[in-house]
Amino acid sequence: MHKASAAPTSRGSGAGGGGPAARLAVSAAATDGVAMSNAAFFEWLDERRREQPQRVRRVPFSELKGWGFDQATGDLRHRSGRFFTVHGLRVRSDFGPVPEWEQPIIDQPEFGILGIAVREIDGVLHLLMQAKSEPGNVNGVQLSPTIQATKSNYSRVHGGSAVAYLDSFYRPAPGSVLADSLQSEQGTWFHRKRNRNMVVEVGPEVEAGEDFCWLTLGQVNALLGFDNLVNMDSRTVLACLPDWQPPADGGAPAVSLHGDAEVRSWLTQRRVEHEVTTTRLPLNDVAGWQRWDDRVEHERGLFFSVIGVDVSSGRREVPAWTQPLLLPSGVGLSGLLLRYVAGVPHVLLRARVEPGLIDVAELGPTVQLTPGNYAHLPAEDQPPFQRELLEGGAGKPLFDSVLSEEGGRFHHAECRYVITEVEDDVLETLETGDGPRACAAEFRWTSVTQLDELLRYGGQLNVQARTLVAALRSVR
Amino acid sequence: MHKASAAPTSRGSGAGGGGPAARLAVSAAATDGVAMSNAAFFEWLDERRREQPQRVRRVPFSELKGWGFDQATGDLRHRSGRFFTVHGLRVRSDFGPVPEWEQPIIDQPEFGILGIAVREIDGVLHLLMQAKSEPGNVNGVQLSPTIQATKSNYSRVHGGSAVAYLDSFYRPAPGSVLADSLQSEQGTWFHRKRNRNMVVEVGPEVEAGEDFCWLTLGQVNALLGFDNLVNMDSRTVLACLPDWQPPADGGAPAVSLHGDAEVRSWLTQRRVEHEVTTTRLPLNDVAGWQRWDDRVEHERGLFFSVIGVDVSSGRREVPAWTQPLLLPSGVGLSGLLLRYVAGVPHVLLRARVEPGLIDVAELGPTVQLTPGNYAHLPAEDQPPFQRELLEGGAGKPLFDSVLSEEGGRFHHAECRYVITEVEDDVLETLETGDGPRACAAEFRWTSVTQLDELLRYGGQLNVQARTLVAALRSVR
Repeated sequence: MHKASAAPTSRGSGAGGGGPAARLAVSAAATDGVAMSNAAFFEWLDERRREQPQRVRRVPFSELKGWGFDQATGDLRHRSGRFFTVHGLRVRSDFGPVPEWEQPIIDQPEFGILGIAVREIDGVLHLLMQAKSEPGNVNGVQLSPTIQATKSNYSRVHGGSAVAYLDSFYRPAPGSVLADSLQSEQGTWFHRKRNRNMVVEVGPEVEAGEDFCWLTLGQVNALLGFDNLVNMDSRTVLACLPDWQPPADGGAPAVSLHGDAEVRSWLTQRRVEHEVTTTRLPLNDVAGWQRWDDRVEHERGLFFSVIGVDVSSGRREVPAWTQPLLLPSGVGLSGLLLRYVAGVPHVLLRARVEPGLIDVAELGPTVQLTPGNYAHLPAEDQPPFQRELLEGGAGKPLFDSVLSEEGGRFHHAECRYVITEVEDDVLETLETGDGPRACAAEFRWTSVTQLDELLRYGGQLNVQARTLVAALRSVR
Repeated sequence: MHKASAAPTSRGSGAGGGGPAARLAVSAAATDGVAMSNAAFFEWLDERRREQPQRVRRVPFSELKGWGFDQATGDLRHRSGRFFTVHGLRVRSDFGPVPEWEQPIIDQPEFGILGIAVREIDGVLHLLMQAKSEPGNVNGVQLSPTIQATKSNYSRVHGGSAVAYLDSFYRPAPGSVLADSLQSEQGTWFHRKRNRNMVVEVGPEVEAGEDFCWLTLGQVNALLGFDNLVNMDSRTVLACLPDWQPPADGGAPAVSLHGDAEVRSWLTQRRVEHEVTTTRLPLNDVAGWQRWDDRVEHERGLFFSVIGVDVSSGRREVPAWTQPLLLPSGVGLSGLLLRYVAGVPHVLLRARVEPGLIDVAELGPTVQLTPGNYAHLPAEDQPPFQRELLEGGAGKPLFDSVLSEEGGRFHHAECRYVITEVEDDVLETLETGDGPRACAAEFRWTSVTQLDELLRYGGQLNVQARTLVAALRSVR
C-alpha cells in the first residue's frame, strides 16, 4: 500500500529539477499532496492508530524488568548496561539565577540516527514519514522520521531484526546527502546526548512499508500546526533541511543586522564568558531529590520526576516491556520573536548555557522555560519577553501549537511553541528593564539566512530552537 | 618606534576598500611591506632577540617552585591550582593500530585568547605581530600574535599587570571581528584544550609597542617559510582569516570534487563510526610510564617526556620562574598532498581520532606523525602517503619548513611541515595497498574553498591542519 505512483522520474530531474533548495520549494508548494492526498493521510493515520494499540501503565520501580538501582550509587540502569542510565549531576554555573544545584540526568552516550528519506515522485520530492507509537506520547502514535535508531538498534544488524531503511542512512550513497550533522538534545534532561540528523535522497526502489507514507514538504509543514502530531525527532531533522525560501521578498540580497562573523563571534563570546562545571554524582547523593517506590522527585515537586512504566503493544519488535521515563513537572513554553529589518526576517535568539551540552552554550529561542519552575523566583529573575511573546504582535501569533518531546524517554512532555511578530526592537528595553541577569548580551537578532548556516554544523542551535526553525519555515 | 606612518586612512577605505577578502588580498600582495620594510623587520627582530635574553636550564622536579606531585595521585600541578596539570589518561579506541593505551596528558581547561589585531596603514591592512620569547622555543624569540593570553592572565586585569591590547579582543567593537572561533590544540598532548582564535580590526589609535610591529599579510606569509620563526599561535590565527584568494584561475566558479554537504557528512560519519573512551587516571597509575627525578618518560623512550625547567629573563612580568614542559621524542612530520581537479586546488585531509579532542575526530593533514614513534610497528600499520609527500610531485615541495609548536608548554617541539603537489588521485591506490587500517574512508579530497568554510566554526580542522592551511595560502 501507499506505493509511489507509476514511473517515478529519476533523481534530480522532473519539475523539481535544480539545486536542493529549488526542489524543496516545489515540494513545499505542493500542500495538497501528490502521492497521497491530505484526506487519505488522515484516514491512514487513524488506521495506523488502530493498528498500533498501546497500553502504558505507571508501575513502581520494583516491577521494572531488567532495570534497577545500583546498590552502591543508586543509579538507575539496565542490567545489560544498554539503553540509558539515570545518575546525578552537580552543576556550578555563573549563568542564570541559581549558581549551583544538583539534579538527576539521563546519560545515553551513544549516537543514534534520526533520518528522513526523500524521493522524487512525479517530479516532486516526498518525505518518507512513519506512524510510530512511543510509550511517553500523550496520544500513542505520532509522525516520526523514516528511521529513529539508537546505536544499540543498528549495531544488531548482524543479530536481531534490522531497522527498516537503515542501509540508506548508515553509509549513504555519494551525492545523496542533503543534511548530516550531530545535533544536541535537551541539555537540562540529557547529559551530552547528541543524535545524527540526516536527510538522504533515495531512488524509486525504496517504497513505503505499512507504517510509512510519502508526504510532500508542504503537507508535513501543514501537519506541524496540529498539536502533538509531528514528533520531536521529525522536527529536528526538518530544521536541518537546507532553507528553501528566499530570505527577502523581491529578490534583493538579504542583509542581516549583524554580519555572519559577528554572529559566530557572539556565540564564541558567550561560550568563553561562562564558567560551567559539572560533576557526575551517584543518584543516591543528589541533594534535594528523594526516591519513592514509584518515582524519584524534587522535594518541592519542581522540574521533573523519574518514573517507571509498563508498556504493552502488539506491534513492536518486543511486544511488551518496562522502562523508566522522565516526567516533566508541567507544560513548557518556547518561543521566538520575529521582526522584519529592511524586509529581511530576523528572530531573536538567546545564548543558553545548559549543563548537558558538550560545548557550554548553544543558541536557543527567545523564551524557553517551564513556567511553573520559575514561580518561586522573584520578578527580576523571570526570563524576559514572555509578555511580548504571548500578548505582543499586531494579531495572533504566526505559530502556536503544543508539541511533544521525545516519547521514548519523556512521559507526556509537552511544550507550547509560539512565534510572534513584533515591530519594535524589544531588545532596547532590556538593559534597564529586567534586572542584571537578563543581560542584553545574551540575545541577538539573527536573520533566517544565518539560521540556515548555523544549522549546517551541529552544536550551534539547541533542540527547542530547531523545532521553532521548522515551525517558522512552515508558516513563512 | 615603529608607529604607523602619518595620516592612516579610516577603517575600510583606501586602496584596500571592499570586503575583508579583497582587503586581505591587497595586504598579501604587499610583500615588501608598507609600514616597515623587510630589511627593517629583520634588524628589529635581531634587536628584540638581544633585548629578550633568556636562559633555560633543565632542573630536577625538586627544584620547581610551586609545582609538585600530588601525594595521593602523583599528578603534577601548581599549588595555586592555576596554569595546568599533568595527569594520566586511559584511552580505548577502535581507531589506529593500538586499541588501548595509557599516557600522561596536559589538562588546562580554561579558554585562552590568541588574537591578531589588524589595522589599515596607508590603505593597506597590517597585522600587529609580537616578538615574544617562550621557554620551550629552540631559539628564544619567535613571531607571536598580538595577544596570547590565558584566562588567568586576562582575569587579572583588576589585579596585576594587564595584558597589552586585551581590550580590543575581550569585548570587540561591533563590525570589527574578522574571525572568532574556539579551535582545538594538539589532541595527543592536551586534554580538551581549546583557545579562542581572533582577528579584530582596530583603529589608528592603536600603536605598536616596543616588542610589536605592523607587517603586511604578504610579509607574514613570506616569514612562514623561515624555520622556527612564526609561532604556532600565529599560524592557527592566520588560518582563521577569511581566504583572500580566488579558488580557481580565470574567475569561473570553483567546483569541488565532493559537495559541501557531503564533506560535512563524511566528518559526521567518522565521528559516529569510532568509539573512543577516555578515563582520567592518577599520573602514578599510568602503565608503561616511569617517574625519574628529572623526567616522566615512557619505558621505551617513545612519544614524549615531562621535564622541569628554570627560566630567567629580564623582560617578563615575572623575571625568573620554573615550570614543567612536555618534551617530544623527535621531530614531527605533518604534510598535505595537493592536487588540481579541473583547475580547482584540493588537499587530501584525513579524519583523525585524537584522545584529547572534545568531539572524537577532527580533520587533519594527509600525513601527521612523529616518525620515531612508528618505528616499532609493522609496515601495514605505517601511516600512508609519507613517500608521496617526501618524494612525490614533479619538483620540490611547494612548502617545506620546520616550525615550532607552542613554546610555553612544549620544549623544543619541532615539526616539519610539507606541502607537495601530485598529479594522480593517490587515494585510488589505498584500498588494496596499505593494509586494512589505512582505510580510504578516512581520507577525502577537499577543495580550498571548503577549508575556508570548515574554519569558520571551531572543532573541524586540527591544529596541524591549520598550520598547513596558513602555509598553503602563503605559497598559492
